[in-house]
Amino acid sequence: MEESQSQSQNKTSGGRLYIVGIGPGSIEQLTIKARDVILNADYVLGNSTYLDHVADLLGTQKIIRSSMGKEVDRARKAVDLAKDANVVMVSGGDTNVYGMAGIVIEVAEHENLDVEIEVLPGVTAILAAASMLGAPVVTDFSVISLSDLLTPWEVIEKRLNLASEADFVIALYNPKSRQRKSNFARAIEIIRKYKADSVPVGLVKNALRGEGEAQIVTTLGEVMEHEDWVDMSTVILVGNAESRIWNSPRKDIIITPRGYQRKYDY
Amino acid sequence: MEESQSQSQNKTSGGRLYIVGIGPGSIEQLTIKARDVILNADYVLGNSTYLDHVADLLGTQKIIRSSMGKEVDRARKAVDLAKDANVVMVSGGDTNVYGMAGIVIEVAEHENLDVEIEVLPGVTAILAAASMLGAPVVTDFSVISLSDLLTPWEVIEKRLNLASEADFVIALYNPKSRQRKSNFARAIEIIRKYKADSVPVGLVKNALRGEGEAQIVTTLGEVMEHEDWVDMSTVILVGNAESRIWNSPRKDIIITPRGYQRKYDY
Repeated sequence: MEESQSQSQNKTSGGRLYIVGIGPGSIEQLTIKARDVILNADYVLGNSTYLDHVADLLGTQKIIRSSMGKEVDRARKAVDLAKDANVVMVSGGDTNVYGMAGIVIEVAEHENLDVEIEVLPGVTAILAAASMLGAPVVTDFSVISLSDLLTPWEVIEKRLNLASEADFVIALYNPKSRQRKSNFARAIEIIRKYKADSVPVGLVKNALRGEGEAQIVTTLGEVMEHEDWVDMSTVILVGNAESRIWNSPRKDIIITPRGYQRKYDY
Repeated sequence: MEESQSQSQNKTSGGRLYIVGIGPGSIEQLTIKARDVILNADYVLGNSTYLDHVADLLGTQKIIRSSMGKEVDRARKAVDLAKDANVVMVSGGDTNVYGMAGIVIEVAEHENLDVEIEVLPGVTAILAAASMLGAPVVTDFSVISLSDLLTPWEVIEKRLNLASEADFVIALYNPKSRQRKSNFARAIEIIRKYKADSVPVGLVKNALRGEGEAQIVTTLGEVMEHEDWVDMSTVILVGNAESRIWNSPRKDIIITPRGYQRKYDY
């Protein structure tokens, strides 16, 4: 903390807390503002994975790494430092969507922090995945995490049922982990109660991360054939009743029409 | 079209079609890749509003403006030009979320276009609005457009009912237009059947657009007092049962806890 005070007296008058979405993982998918805020920070905090994603932007800033699962400690440190310095907390994807904005602002509230807090949005993993698949999310959609670490499983099941009944395009996050092998299979089982087996499903790993990108285009009736391929870094997009697959000359693309075909001829 | 062929013979071998999300409207909210792809395009197509947002990036590219409502014509032109040139179709926010990816790829499918199609995601208006409000969307959420131009109103009502029953955080797009004055009031009425009057609601105009930004933090019970303020450019975010408002020393902030408070002490 002493370090931060001497730093701030040189560079800032009063601190500022930025919570910055860094997008899917490659620098080119950051917003220009997110890049500039990171470049000009006194401190950059984050878990090691996210700090590695922006390593090319880190030079003179003080870096505070912490490990996954230490979100509350990390948030407390960011809030403390922000009283006197320009502090950036990096968050994968967007800061809001299962990101760090929540916990950091909760800690700021707890301490009634009186500095400017600026939340910078980023490209969230769902939309990175959607862009790789083509146009699966052009109309109303729901986003559901299958992680029951922080949300009771009954609530997750209820949301899966109602979102499927409403025929939303559905994006599933956190489909699997070592502790939760069966959640993905159970989610697909629920969705199939409402949606036809012909509905397109896209599975995307490491969407726009720059390395390890992979995708599968399949259908709800056949997606369980790919169950072993699905891991914690996979985003799943399930179409609605109007979605279809275009086997284009280059790759398979999912299209969810917005409804223009009801109004126009091509 | 002849123009495009001579152009392409100089600059590219075969064309490429980019569908590019430009984010909320200021250059600094573009991704670095979106900016670079626009800078290097042979043609940039879009409606006038979006082209104005990226005016600082437009110089040597050929620009094709079209007006709102001419999406199909614009898509057809982009697909045609992409056979021989680097073509960028710009789309506000993200390309998928009520964006141009759908219609452009539908037209490409109709013509069985055999060139690389690259969809570049952007910061969507919901997440730009969420970032201005703090952390309202940290957990599962649904996104619903209240425009019944392309979706039947019965489907919209069904989605409002089911998303509210599931206690999703709900983002509403296109709340009002000259033709549809009552849709917003009706949507709030439906949501109030399921969610308590104390649930926080954020209204955001021109989120992160750089000009005209404005926001109101209120509750479901009181949001109709602001009905006249809501217009077509407003995004509405309705919290879930755990969301709360922090009257911070700087501004009112919406927090939807992810559930850390069930697991940790601060």
